[in-house]
Amino acid sequence: MQPIAHYQQIITDYFNNVTFDKQPTGLYQPIQYILSLGGKRIRPVLTLMAAEIFDTDCRKALPAAVAVEVFHNFSLVHDDIMDDAPLRRGHKTVHEKWDINTGILSGDAMLILAYQYFEQYEPEIFRSLAKLFSKTALEVCEGQQWDVDFETRSNVTQDEYLKMIEYKTAVLLGAAMKMGAIVAQATEENCDLIYDFGRYLGIAFQLQDDYLDAFGNPQTFGKQVGGDIIENKKTYLYLKAIEQANPYEKERLLQWFAVQPDDHMEKIADVKQVFKTSGADAAVKNAIELYTLKAFETLDKMDIDISKKQALRAFGEMLMERNV
Amino acid sequence: MQPIAHYQQIITDYFNNVTFDKQPTGLYQPIQYILSLGGKRIRPVLTLMAAEIFDTDCRKALPAAVAVEVFHNFSLVHDDIMDDAPLRRGHKTVHEKWDINTGILSGDAMLILAYQYFEQYEPEIFRSLAKLFSKTALEVCEGQQWDVDFETRSNVTQDEYLKMIEYKTAVLLGAAMKMGAIVAQATEENCDLIYDFGRYLGIAFQLQDDYLDAFGNPQTFGKQVGGDIIENKKTYLYLKAIEQANPYEKERLLQWFAVQPDDHMEKIADVKQVFKTSGADAAVKNAIELYTLKAFETLDKMDIDISKKQALRAFGEMLMERNV
Repeated sequence: MQPIAHYQQIITDYFNNVTFDKQPTGLYQPIQYILSLGGKRIRPVLTLMAAEIFDTDCRKALPAAVAVEVFHNFSLVHDDIMDDAPLRRGHKTVHEKWDINTGILSGDAMLILAYQYFEQYEPEIFRSLAKLFSKTALEVCEGQQWDVDFETRSNVTQDEYLKMIEYKTAVLLGAAMKMGAIVAQATEENCDLIYDFGRYLGIAFQLQDDYLDAFGNPQTFGKQVGGDIIENKKTYLYLKAIEQANPYEKERLLQWFAVQPDDHMEKIADVKQVFKTSGADAAVKNAIELYTLKAFETLDKMDIDISKKQALRAFGEMLMERNV
Repeated sequence: MQPIAHYQQIITDYFNNVTFDKQPTGLYQPIQYILSLGGKRIRPVLTLMAAEIFDTDCRKALPAAVAVEVFHNFSLVHDDIMDDAPLRRGHKTVHEKWDINTGILSGDAMLILAYQYFEQYEPEIFRSLAKLFSKTALEVCEGQQWDVDFETRSNVTQDEYLKMIEYKTAVLLGAAMKMGAIVAQATEENCDLIYDFGRYLGIAFQLQDDYLDAFGNPQTFGKQVGGDIIENKKTYLYLKAIEQANPYEKERLLQWFAVQPDDHMEKIADVKQVFKTSGADAAVKNAIELYTLKAFETLDKMDIDISKKQALRAFGEMLMERNV
């Protein structure tokens, strides 16, 4: 196993050198643009790592890793249209730089391009990869739809919320790792275990995102702290607070989440107060611990060297400390 | 070979009995809706027919045929958003009945669902189908982008226009047929020939669409006659007229295609007049003949029974007479 930076460099090199300068440029330039904006490339790194976990040169997994990253960026392009988001990684979103139609069509092309990367594998592996990819991609769409539905529902349960983040975010992390394992022709059991490892870690990661949105360090979080509170987003933190708060606190929370005041400083401060006094902050921290633990437990069951397990565990810890 | 109606019935039965009543309904109801609106189902019929041409029970090709139809409807859903079209097959378009975000996301899910139908085949055939499908789907996106680009360009050549309709429309007809041949494990040469047959027929079909838009019978054409003229669409008919018209006629055409008068009767009548006097109508009829002939010529090269060739030829003639 190599350090994470090694795998990140392989992905960065790939996207720095690939050009989508095909005709018509109106279709391919936006693809080149979004893929060159960078990001942490966590998903393709997971694919490369998983291949090496199962004793296969990570470069053999590069096409699958690239497919995962291209798919992830497809989903960002279409989600940004749906969320009317102006910025992505500090730059204009595709539909802002061009227009909505361009975002739709270039996104469609990216989804197809992702499938094409699997063509570099032999039939059996191609089929396994494409099958897992389709299942995962559909779940990501379902997760996005649940997320949209939840915006206008007031009775979202914690279980429903967990399922939403599992589909929208976590399954792609699981699939990214399983693809590396498939390329390495790992046993079916190991393939499934590393999928669960990635999936549990993905849930923990997303719950931590919810937590950091309220309690993160503005210098290191990368997004506006309190963003979810401003937008009345019913995150796990909010749902836990609604469950655990006393009637007076609950009422305050409901009132704050029914308005969007221009000056949101007081709202953020008071909501965070309720998140703390209700014990929601501790409850979410517990849940993060729980899912991280579940991830590490699947590691124990895997039929691989202890050194490989340690490497995966170190990666999981690093990810949860957000040093990746 | 069976009559066309037989294959149409198989497809109709399939879509009448399949239900996409999965959760979340916000994602799957629009899919159920668009797929139940019907249409002539020409593309999946081509897939079933092609399988029987190569001596294989057409039901073996049903999953591939359904994939083609689901993909075609995906492209309609996204194109209708881009064209801001209110109606499709006499009913509200998906983004009109729901909203644009629903159209984007349900469309994405349909593209993925299309790939999933190939999973019913063994690895070698799965790979061939998915590979052809990805190539074709990307070309359809490229064709759509060319079409968008042409709206704001005044120097579109006839060759560029032909390439656009080939990508946007014809390659999917070719691919639909080739998929039936792949399922039937036809020789590579026969697979390529039947692809060309479908592709040439597709170009002829689209050119005929351009022709009928101006000169079709309002009772049988199915769309508003003169629609392309009203919208200043630079079709093959227009490009031929620009090439062949005398300076006075050309000037009139350019003037008409720079405006969108509320009362378009005079415009339609005058433009059609120029299409005739310039000989553009005859030139387009010639081109339709030419591509139909090219389709029939590829038939001659195919290594199949003469009766099968006659059946395909009859289908081609029926399609060009628009009795399908």
